[in-house]
Amino acid sequence: MNAHELPILLDRASELPLAAQLATALRRAILGGILQHDEALPSTRALATSVRVSRGTVVAAYDQLAGEGYLLARPGSATRVMVERHDAVPAPAARNPTSAASAAARPPRPVTPPPLIDLAPGHPSTRTLVDPAWTAAWRAAVAASGRSDSPPSSGTIDLRTAIADHVRRARGLACRPDDVIVTAGTSDALATIGLAVAALAGGADGSEAGTHSARIAVEDPGYPTARRVLRRVGALLLPVRTDSDGIDLAELAALTPAPHAVLVTPSHQYPLGSSLSVQSRLDLLGWARAADAVVIEDDYDSEFRFETMPLPAVATLDRSGRVALVGSFSKTVTPWIRCGYIVASGDLGEALRAVRHDLDATVSGVQQAALAHYLASGGLARNVTRVRREYAHRRALVIGALGALPGVRLAGLDGGLHVVVHIDLPGGADASALVAQAAERGVRVASLADYAVLDRGQHGLVLGYGAPTDLELARALAVLAELLAAPSTH
Amino acid sequence: MNAHELPILLDRASELPLAAQLATALRRAILGGILQHDEALPSTRALATSVRVSRGTVVAAYDQLAGEGYLLARPGSATRVMVERHDAVPAPAARNPTSAASAAARPPRPVTPPPLIDLAPGHPSTRTLVDPAWTAAWRAAVAASGRSDSPPSSGTIDLRTAIADHVRRARGLACRPDDVIVTAGTSDALATIGLAVAALAGGADGSEAGTHSARIAVEDPGYPTARRVLRRVGALLLPVRTDSDGIDLAELAALTPAPHAVLVTPSHQYPLGSSLSVQSRLDLLGWARAADAVVIEDDYDSEFRFETMPLPAVATLDRSGRVALVGSFSKTVTPWIRCGYIVASGDLGEALRAVRHDLDATVSGVQQAALAHYLASGGLARNVTRVRREYAHRRALVIGALGALPGVRLAGLDGGLHVVVHIDLPGGADASALVAQAAERGVRVASLADYAVLDRGQHGLVLGYGAPTDLELARALAVLAELLAAPSTH
Repeated sequence: MNAHELPILLDRASELPLAAQLATALRRAILGGILQHDEALPSTRALATSVRVSRGTVVAAYDQLAGEGYLLARPGSATRVMVERHDAVPAPAARNPTSAASAAARPPRPVTPPPLIDLAPGHPSTRTLVDPAWTAAWRAAVAASGRSDSPPSSGTIDLRTAIADHVRRARGLACRPDDVIVTAGTSDALATIGLAVAALAGGADGSEAGTHSARIAVEDPGYPTARRVLRRVGALLLPVRTDSDGIDLAELAALTPAPHAVLVTPSHQYPLGSSLSVQSRLDLLGWARAADAVVIEDDYDSEFRFETMPLPAVATLDRSGRVALVGSFSKTVTPWIRCGYIVASGDLGEALRAVRHDLDATVSGVQQAALAHYLASGGLARNVTRVRREYAHRRALVIGALGALPGVRLAGLDGGLHVVVHIDLPGGADASALVAQAAERGVRVASLADYAVLDRGQHGLVLGYGAPTDLELARALAVLAELLAAPSTH
Repeated sequence: MNAHELPILLDRASELPLAAQLATALRRAILGGILQHDEALPSTRALATSVRVSRGTVVAAYDQLAGEGYLLARPGSATRVMVERHDAVPAPAARNPTSAASAAARPPRPVTPPPLIDLAPGHPSTRTLVDPAWTAAWRAAVAASGRSDSPPSSGTIDLRTAIADHVRRARGLACRPDDVIVTAGTSDALATIGLAVAALAGGADGSEAGTHSARIAVEDPGYPTARRVLRRVGALLLPVRTDSDGIDLAELAALTPAPHAVLVTPSHQYPLGSSLSVQSRLDLLGWARAADAVVIEDDYDSEFRFETMPLPAVATLDRSGRVALVGSFSKTVTPWIRCGYIVASGDLGEALRAVRHDLDATVSGVQQAALAHYLASGGLARNVTRVRREYAHRRALVIGALGALPGVRLAGLDGGLHVVVHIDLPGGADASALVAQAAERGVRVASLADYAVLDRGQHGLVLGYGAPTDLELARALAVLAELLAAPSTH
């Protein structure tokens, strides 16, 4: 489409920056069908001339829309419209919960179900990932791949150095490359830690057959995958009540005998989204010292904060070497690459390295080299900046669609890629009926109950907003708003 | 160097092919210092014209020498000499074991030790790996890496399909992609199997804390890394005497209670190099059926055979779904990529997939896609052909240098990347003194004792010839020949 054919009217007297106004106009043109799927946009130069703004303003607007998933920008070719209007965005239903009209007015279910929109948590946006920094990193790694050795069992020195730098900058934790262990993602990290805790618990060097079970306390509700991994490597799990203040330290301290380790998500509790206060972090460390226990700090999502700075990692408060910090590149890069790390020092670090030595390296040397390049070149930092902006926009869409519904409370909004929707439900009911109704209408969401070991009366939905496009998210939110407003559900 | 300056004389009446004669002449020119390190060779066209052979003959000779590590051929630039003569190849010492002259005549140890030549087994040649097929495979994989999901826990369908094809072609085992589980190399495969055997042994679904130890019989001598991995995931290991006929089936059958599994290397026993007869394979399966045990078949090195075709994998003889075949790309591609697989069906396959599901995928989706491309495009098959030729040449060097020494017997020559040097040693002595003497002179070799759990009187060295260049190997063999001939060692 030619630049002058686009319906763009800018208000130069407005307080809204011109780039934001331009982005809004383009978003409307796409949603209104004026710009169609796969259509090429005008060059930044042509559009800048046509609407009389600087070229930088157009670049900023395109960049914003690419970040939001509306546009696809590729070096050396025209920027194109990425979203496709499968059907119109459903109009939000009447929000009056006392009226039965909304349910009655619902159109009959179509014969072919609409394409599934997946709001299951844990999937990041990767639309901006394949950029020149990413491909250059892999090219260098592949060129150097003709090697006849395995990567070191704890990871290459290049990647461990890059991760130590990253953790220092992103989380304020001063650590040496020798404190870093490269793993095939968070699950591989937790398997390593589970086996190391078992070895420490047995007081053995691991050479005896595993008769010692590690007793590991976990948050409830918590991360089901973590429970699966730890159980599979022989751990006995002890679920501890967890709410919007984080793990219940009194319940943890009352466990007899004391567990050998506790797995926590202090920066953004999974799934509740709460953050553990600094006092609780210090108390947790105090308990760990007294109980001679290991603190496993799963630091997932700490890169994505919208309102407040993240609290320092528990590991930064630790003076006794009892914290194993776990991080991964699943959210900041892509879960497709299966790469993460553990940071730990002292005896705990030694025990972890012994496990890794016994089990051998799991992460391809090619991938380690590529990731080391990507981190060292600043590619990761730039990608995090891009997706953070994208998530902030999506989060605003969620608040706009669901934030004002009666009987609904949003939580975990300060960070991450997902939000918890607490719902007032009639006594005893959980959110499974709502999950099933959403699925019937083509929207996959998770129930808070899926994360719990014991039913502690916390009901609601968990919505991931990382992976869908804005249009998909808007469609899904309209469906959910309608269901949450309907009297049949609550 | 110009083509006509090279000292090449071809005997057109000889039965030796012209390409082989040309390769020999060029090898001599390099070893004799006529062609120096990094020097460009004439183009294939110029040399063909100069010595009056077809260009294809020159290409074949260059290809052979590149495979042997003498030359480096890169698309779009001149072929160059790759080897560097750090010093002259030491002259073989007097081989008369009754003379003390050789030890006395040994020059004083140099102040700076010579660069270490590593003949530790397990390192393949990767000089020919980074070719256009390899880089194209990765380029395609990286271009498709912007995904927000993890790879499936058992591997991508593309890679499982390519592996099923590969196993069918290379090992004659008819298997479906659904029978394939992708792992981060052999160690990750063995950890998966160890945990699955424990779950099957306990009759549990793995949800209980690991109180059941899997009892697993292993070959002795055998693969130390396998023992380390299996022990670390809680298995109790039962070493079974193994010799040039393979594992002692009578000793295996006498174990009470019967083990839950046995780990064997039937195609090329590690480290002894022997092959299990077809009758023994059938007997092993009969025992497994009677004992309700799993056979773990580590099929390493089966691609590299020099004299006879490999026997069919035990898995091909199995009708009861009790064999888990383990393979890896560490030798056929490079251990740098940490990628392997398990092939298993039925209940065993289900138990393995359940473990992988619990532990999550360990292999990067980028790498899985790259490897799937590389296998499907025929890149792997071509690389195996190239390195097989290289290994056959090196194996001839080993036989030439050590095969005729008194008191020395070479074994395991029919396949693989390593050879066992059995030595008659005075009663009670093992080969550790010899290993230490070799190390002092800059050659790293392994002792057969390093592979054994119990001392069963098998003494000798294990030499890997995959990774060193021909020149390095020749130097190292000269050192070893001198040590083996000296009366101080035996």
